Amino acid sequence: MAAWSSSPSLRHLLLLRPCLPLRPACLTGSFTGRHRLFSASSSTLTHGDAASTHADADGIVDVNPPRGTRDFPPEDMRLRTWLFDQFREVSRLMAFEEVDFPVLESEALFIRKAGEEITQQLYNFEDKGGRRVVLRPEITPSLARLVIKQGKSVSLPLKWFTIGQCWRYERMTRGRRREHYQWNMDIFGVPKVRAEAELIQAIVLLFQRLGITSSDVGIRVSSRKVLQAVLNMYSIPEHLFTEVCVIVDKLGKMTREEIEKELISTGLSSEAVQGIIDVLSLKSLVKLEEVLGSGVEAVADLKKLFSFADQYGYTDWICFDASVVRGLAYYTGIVFEAFDREGKLRAICGGGRYDRLLSTFGSEDIPACGFGFGDAVIVELLKEKDLLPDMSRQIDDIVFPLDEELEGPASSIASSLRKKGRSVDLVEDKRLKWVFKHAERINASRLILVGNSEWERGMVRVKVLSTREEFEVKAGELE
Amino acid sequence: MAAWSSSPSLRHLLLLRPCLPLRPACLTGSFTGRHRLFSASSSTLTHGDAASTHADADGIVDVNPPRGTRDFPPEDMRLRTWLFDQFREVSRLMAFEEVDFPVLESEALFIRKAGEEITQQLYNFEDKGGRRVVLRPEITPSLARLVIKQGKSVSLPLKWFTIGQCWRYERMTRGRRREHYQWNMDIFGVPKVRAEAELIQAIVLLFQRLGITSSDVGIRVSSRKVLQAVLNMYSIPEHLFTEVCVIVDKLGKMTREEIEKELISTGLSSEAVQGIIDVLSLKSLVKLEEVLGSGVEAVADLKKLFSFADQYGYTDWICFDASVVRGLAYYTGIVFEAFDREGKLRAICGGGRYDRLLSTFGSEDIPACGFGFGDAVIVELLKEKDLLPDMSRQIDDIVFPLDEELEGPASSIASSLRKKGRSVDLVEDKRLKWVFKHAERINASRLILVGNSEWERGMVRVKVLSTREEFEVKAGELE
Repeated sequence: MAAWSSSPSLRHLLLLRPCLPLRPACLTGSFTGRHRLFSASSSTLTHGDAASTHADADGIVDVNPPRGTRDFPPEDMRLRTWLFDQFREVSRLMAFEEVDFPVLESEALFIRKAGEEITQQLYNFEDKGGRRVVLRPEITPSLARLVIKQGKSVSLPLKWFTIGQCWRYERMTRGRRREHYQWNMDIFGVPKVRAEAELIQAIVLLFQRLGITSSDVGIRVSSRKVLQAVLNMYSIPEHLFTEVCVIVDKLGKMTREEIEKELISTGLSSEAVQGIIDVLSLKSLVKLEEVLGSGVEAVADLKKLFSFADQYGYTDWICFDASVVRGLAYYTGIVFEAFDREGKLRAICGGGRYDRLLSTFGSEDIPACGFGFGDAVIVELLKEKDLLPDMSRQIDDIVFPLDEELEGPASSIASSLRKKGRSVDLVEDKRLKWVFKHAERINASRLILVGNSEWERGMVRVKVLSTREEFEVKAGELE
Repeated sequence: MAAWSSSPSLRHLLLLRPCLPLRPACLTGSFTGRHRLFSASSSTLTHGDAASTHADADGIVDVNPPRGTRDFPPEDMRLRTWLFDQFREVSRLMAFEEVDFPVLESEALFIRKAGEEITQQLYNFEDKGGRRVVLRPEITPSLARLVIKQGKSVSLPLKWFTIGQCWRYERMTRGRRREHYQWNMDIFGVPKVRAEAELIQAIVLLFQRLGITSSDVGIRVSSRKVLQAVLNMYSIPEHLFTEVCVIVDKLGKMTREEIEKELISTGLSSEAVQGIIDVLSLKSLVKLEEVLGSGVEAVADLKKLFSFADQYGYTDWICFDASVVRGLAYYTGIVFEAFDREGKLRAICGGGRYDRLLSTFGSEDIPACGFGFGDAVIVELLKEKDLLPDMSRQIDDIVFPLDEELEGPASSIASSLRKKGRSVDLVEDKRLKWVFKHAERINASRLILVGNSEWERGMVRVKVLSTREEFEVKAGELE
């Protein structure tokens, strides 16, 4: 048996930088759904902070990816693929179609004046042709752009989903990430609360597939029309609506006094500010109806949504909470976010209705709603609840020639098994002991040994690794 | 039956820009494998050229993605997903593990001085922190970076694949694209030609899965050691090797005279230049051996590879062609590229051995080889050969309440079918005629009608669309 003793090995490598153990933490971090997309994280991902520049003067290249970004080595990639497969499967159940967009977009698509965090942290720059471009911070504007572009070629409603990477740039980056992946589901052309009801079913179906129960998480629901009604009560001008929404969304992050000050500075009376703050504390639809009156759309929409929840069978998962506003400027109606009931994590996902986004792009409006579901908080939650599945590698066969002369037959055998659909790792120049360990490590089903004495008779030796069964078989008859 | 007559429709939309029909052309375009990644294309993709800036002065946003980039509406996305699934399936058969990297990398990773097109067209810029970053033009340097970073935690050989977007920036962009997707397979830690033999099997397996035969395409193989041997014959200094490779790779694109001039300008004698050009015209291994002598590595490696081809069973697919050099600076040994035998298209994919890349990053070298396979030329070829599969949408059930009052039961039925794993499109506020047309368009298997007279008895009406069979069933018994 040929042992390849002079094989180069990573063990002998001079490492340039200490290799920080970031594997199991890969998908956790600082991102959630649409709003507060990019808020600070507790723990993970500090690599990249170690090296202040990427290339040293002596030409040694930093082995870390750019600050705030992640590599996905195989273990992390398996986790990501598994999660994305869940996103895709739920999207399939809901009969949504997958779409995609360039990660690089025109900056104009994201320029909004409401003071959102997301537009203050754009990863933007000028390209060599002098165009303002941006690594997109969110996907909704691209979706809207494509809906407009498709124009007459599609019939409404549209039900689209996408999974894509989103970026932010902010200076204080200690332990925070600059990219995450986000699953988006969006419905265009349905003005009724049915659309929100469908989206929330998708989120619940996902949780259920992941083994998460309604005791683990809930979905808080409100409507921006609640705030609209309050603004109407105090005769506050329409153009302040978005700004007020973006300010009161910060209630969890800033003190009540700071929020009040910001609201006052937009020109609101202290009475109106008080009215707004009071309404936001409501957690009961009955109370909301008492305060706003029964005629307002906010109450009717929310009642309808809760009635749908009952029919779909996810009442346990949702609750009314007037403090939910979400941070994106363009929401106009129902807004929602999923949260862990222990209150340890930030929002798991978030979304809402945005019926007036298309007109901000100069087009005619189409009613729309959707959500964004990040790849970070959900993985933190799954870890906490010990719900991550076994992510080990799995292959069908290892083919191993016991002698260098048998590399020919080994090639034919591996080739033919692959043509039959089996995943085959062809191993050479190793000791048998290494091969056995390797087989265990990669969960191989079978080990196929090509040895001289068997091959003289056209046979190979097969070991079934789960049963330790061992037998000889004609090479041509291997299945 | 409730008809939602006031529904907003895209038909009434004021379109901002003419909607160019770019659907079927989406995956075609100007990219191939590793080398000549970004060469000019014949036809497709001209959208984005129409609008010189992305946002007009009046706030109307351009509905096209940034110049040279693509949206993937559902039809295009299905094609892309299908193609990527083929890449993934072949990678699985070959027992490769999937990895991924940030699309944004440090510029230092791609700075090479050999005059490659790929490094002259970097989509690079300075981030807000003053770091030089780049939308990666290729993936190999990221792979190498991760191999170094992983260090002791992995044992060689490593067999990794990835599918990712790559970017270039060049000014003369008429009809050329600035991004494409690329499938990469790479083996680290195998110094023998076995690695190349495995990679070529992967390419052949892919072609076979796609229905492409060895009469449609071939794989040209050579080795940079051929050029190395010629340089040695003329005692040309070692440091000119890479530069010479990059120059002679342009033989297809530039005239022979231009190439000769460039070679002379590096300091080569006209005798040596003649020797190089002569060797590059060889198409027979026997001839090559005559010219170089039998002792040289180039000949031994190539003979070995052809013997492997025989054992794997893909001799029909490969041929020796000394003119294959590939354009990337870092190749050191065997190089190969797949081509269409009609000679209409550019290279379908390309790759080779790069045993000395890691040391350019300041690390210890590990023998490595790999290939890049773009998403453009292969789709052009599949179209030409009429091999693209049916890409239409397919869903299981449409649930349609015939009356608005029945939205509750419709919700429960849709919800319960989805929990059973069926993809369900819940349709409302449409005429029955529209629903039938819709069912046809999306290839629904069944139409489930929730009507008053049936529902009073707890029943729904089911139409199986393929057989036109129609029956009533208890709602709770729907499977």
